[in-house]
Amino acid sequence: MILQFAKPTLLLDESKARANITRMATKAKAQQIQLRPHFKTHQSAVIGQWFQDVGVTAVTVSSVTMAQYFAAHGWDDITIAFPVNVRQLDAINKLAGKIRLGVLVESTTTAVALNSALTNPVDVWLKIDAGYGRTGLVWSEMAQVTAVAQTVAQSPQLRLRGILTHSGHTYSAESPADVVQIYDLTAVRMNAVQQGLANAGLATTVSVGDTTISVGDTPGCSIVNNFGNVDEIRPGNFVFYDLMQQTIGACHYEDIAVGVACPIVAKHAPDQRLILYGGGVHLSKESLRLGNGRSCYGRVALLHEEGWSAPFTDSLITSISQEHGVVQAEKALFDQVDVGDVLLVLPVHSCMTVDLYPAYHTLDGQTIPKMMTNFDLTETI
Amino acid sequence: MILQFAKPTLLLDESKARANITRMATKAKAQQIQLRPHFKTHQSAVIGQWFQDVGVTAVTVSSVTMAQYFAAHGWDDITIAFPVNVRQLDAINKLAGKIRLGVLVESTTTAVALNSALTNPVDVWLKIDAGYGRTGLVWSEMAQVTAVAQTVAQSPQLRLRGILTHSGHTYSAESPADVVQIYDLTAVRMNAVQQGLANAGLATTVSVGDTTISVGDTPGCSIVNNFGNVDEIRPGNFVFYDLMQQTIGACHYEDIAVGVACPIVAKHAPDQRLILYGGGVHLSKESLRLGNGRSCYGRVALLHEEGWSAPFTDSLITSISQEHGVVQAEKALFDQVDVGDVLLVLPVHSCMTVDLYPAYHTLDGQTIPKMMTNFDLTETI
Repeated sequence: MILQFAKPTLLLDESKARANITRMATKAKAQQIQLRPHFKTHQSAVIGQWFQDVGVTAVTVSSVTMAQYFAAHGWDDITIAFPVNVRQLDAINKLAGKIRLGVLVESTTTAVALNSALTNPVDVWLKIDAGYGRTGLVWSEMAQVTAVAQTVAQSPQLRLRGILTHSGHTYSAESPADVVQIYDLTAVRMNAVQQGLANAGLATTVSVGDTTISVGDTPGCSIVNNFGNVDEIRPGNFVFYDLMQQTIGACHYEDIAVGVACPIVAKHAPDQRLILYGGGVHLSKESLRLGNGRSCYGRVALLHEEGWSAPFTDSLITSISQEHGVVQAEKALFDQVDVGDVLLVLPVHSCMTVDLYPAYHTLDGQTIPKMMTNFDLTETI
Repeated sequence: MILQFAKPTLLLDESKARANITRMATKAKAQQIQLRPHFKTHQSAVIGQWFQDVGVTAVTVSSVTMAQYFAAHGWDDITIAFPVNVRQLDAINKLAGKIRLGVLVESTTTAVALNSALTNPVDVWLKIDAGYGRTGLVWSEMAQVTAVAQTVAQSPQLRLRGILTHSGHTYSAESPADVVQIYDLTAVRMNAVQQGLANAGLATTVSVGDTTISVGDTPGCSIVNNFGNVDEIRPGNFVFYDLMQQTIGACHYEDIAVGVACPIVAKHAPDQRLILYGGGVHLSKESLRLGNGRSCYGRVALLHEEGWSAPFTDSLITSISQEHGVVQAEKALFDQVDVGDVLLVLPVHSCMTVDLYPAYHTLDGQTIPKMMTNFDLTETI
């Protein structure tokens, strides 16, 4: 079945994805920490069900559109882990009337705008920058954190749910030990913020006692054994993993659950290059910079009836254009394939690759639909 | 109208695109060279009509799917500028029964496979590598070129239409003078191949006399004044242009005809950063490496009722994640915008950005649909 594809096709190994989900759910449960997985990676109601199967009841998304999609598919506790877009307050209010909705706030301006626009209460997470440096209230600036928390606490439509951070800098970690160090430091800093808020009399309004702490990126949650003093983790990428995670040490090649089937359209013997029908529009332009300075846009494996082989570790997709991918192949690979054969490309960053497709094809021939980021034109305005 | 978007939205300035089309068509016509524009950039039947408006009758595409789409919209002379994918021979045969179809061949294996599978004749272009080094028969290896040409000439279903090259290395040119040099060298090499084929008695079977030469990438076709001794040019990106082309010197900022409207969701005063709702899934992950070593994922301009301003030249999108874009802003920009305002992002590579959307929104409020690369699931197998 999977050997018959004529064009670049997104393949999914359900058993690997389910194993990845189970592993993370088990790890969280053992430490009595809530797993609120980020669904931006898979964007599929069907795959969401696989998380329900292991007891997940609350999820994270990265846009209002994605929250609408998963709410429509039965999820009733959703955090939008993206700064509130004040242009979507109506949509947020409507959603908050249907489900328990969490949003991120990092300024009094947004808190005030949100409170005035809502007729349905929302949970508010203070977005904390614990070192990544992308968005959020800087963890060490407690006066600012407290000021925003106070505004939230005084706003009738806002429930101070907790503090939340994303340590995206684990993605540039050079070793698992670095990831652990970043994770541990993040936890320490989030505990300091929690303590600071408690000192200011700002416990959350939704649970007795401490402010809830939500952390968690895939490298951290995969590598760290002891999650420490946090309440919730929100990894997303782990459902599929990818080459970036493998390079960081967050997974093994055999854990990677998605790939793109790409036909070989040309062989260049002099320099052992294979040309794939599979370029930036099929894989994304995400690349890894390897130790030797070479760029990697993907690694290739052989497809067989039941799935795919381990990747060829001395072969790389070294460049891609819109529809072409160029594989610098090792001899063992080059000699055993021909024009018309199909290779499996393991993606550099599965979130970006998967986002390009409307559906997954599983190894046993099912088609699993997903939402599309830029597609609900009716909701654009 | 265009100021009301709540989410990242692909905007198109029709008058700029039409001016870009007219400029290239006029330039080709003045030199009596056929313009066979590459439609992989816009992927839209409506925009295709704008090319018909200036007399274009033949086009280039990058996949069988795209050929099917444009054939269904009335185009009857289409070259698929991508190595023949032997897994799609049935689809190629069907198309060849409906329109004049050109395909690229670079090996006798493919020529033989193609000929045996077809019941409808196709035009064959020998794909020549004139220096880019991605795909094709190396221009200086005339024995190989001739061998493939002979196979084509002897195949009843294959008409030797000409020789074709893509000088994609103009994209890494450092100056307009470099682009001109690459273009001129390409033309010289293609003429040498043409002469070599003539010496071997292999003129094309579709026109009396010389083999047709098809060249042309957007940097070359935009910068070069005299196209020299070639018959056809196939630029594509010029319909919209982008920051990559502006950096090469192929266009000015004001020629760029597409951008993505992105709401500002956070302002970080200490380091003058703006956080946009607009990330890799809205812009693509394509980046430019600027002279100072910084990465650029886009430049920003102000939106107004009639379009957009010139970009702020000292402001850059310095990093993007799945849905976030981080703008390192100059003071003049930072001080005049606020959370909830919408900025226009000029794309690094318009082909990749546009590919993410199902439709364009024009400045006067029209929605122009386009095809989607990974969407015709029924055609996948």
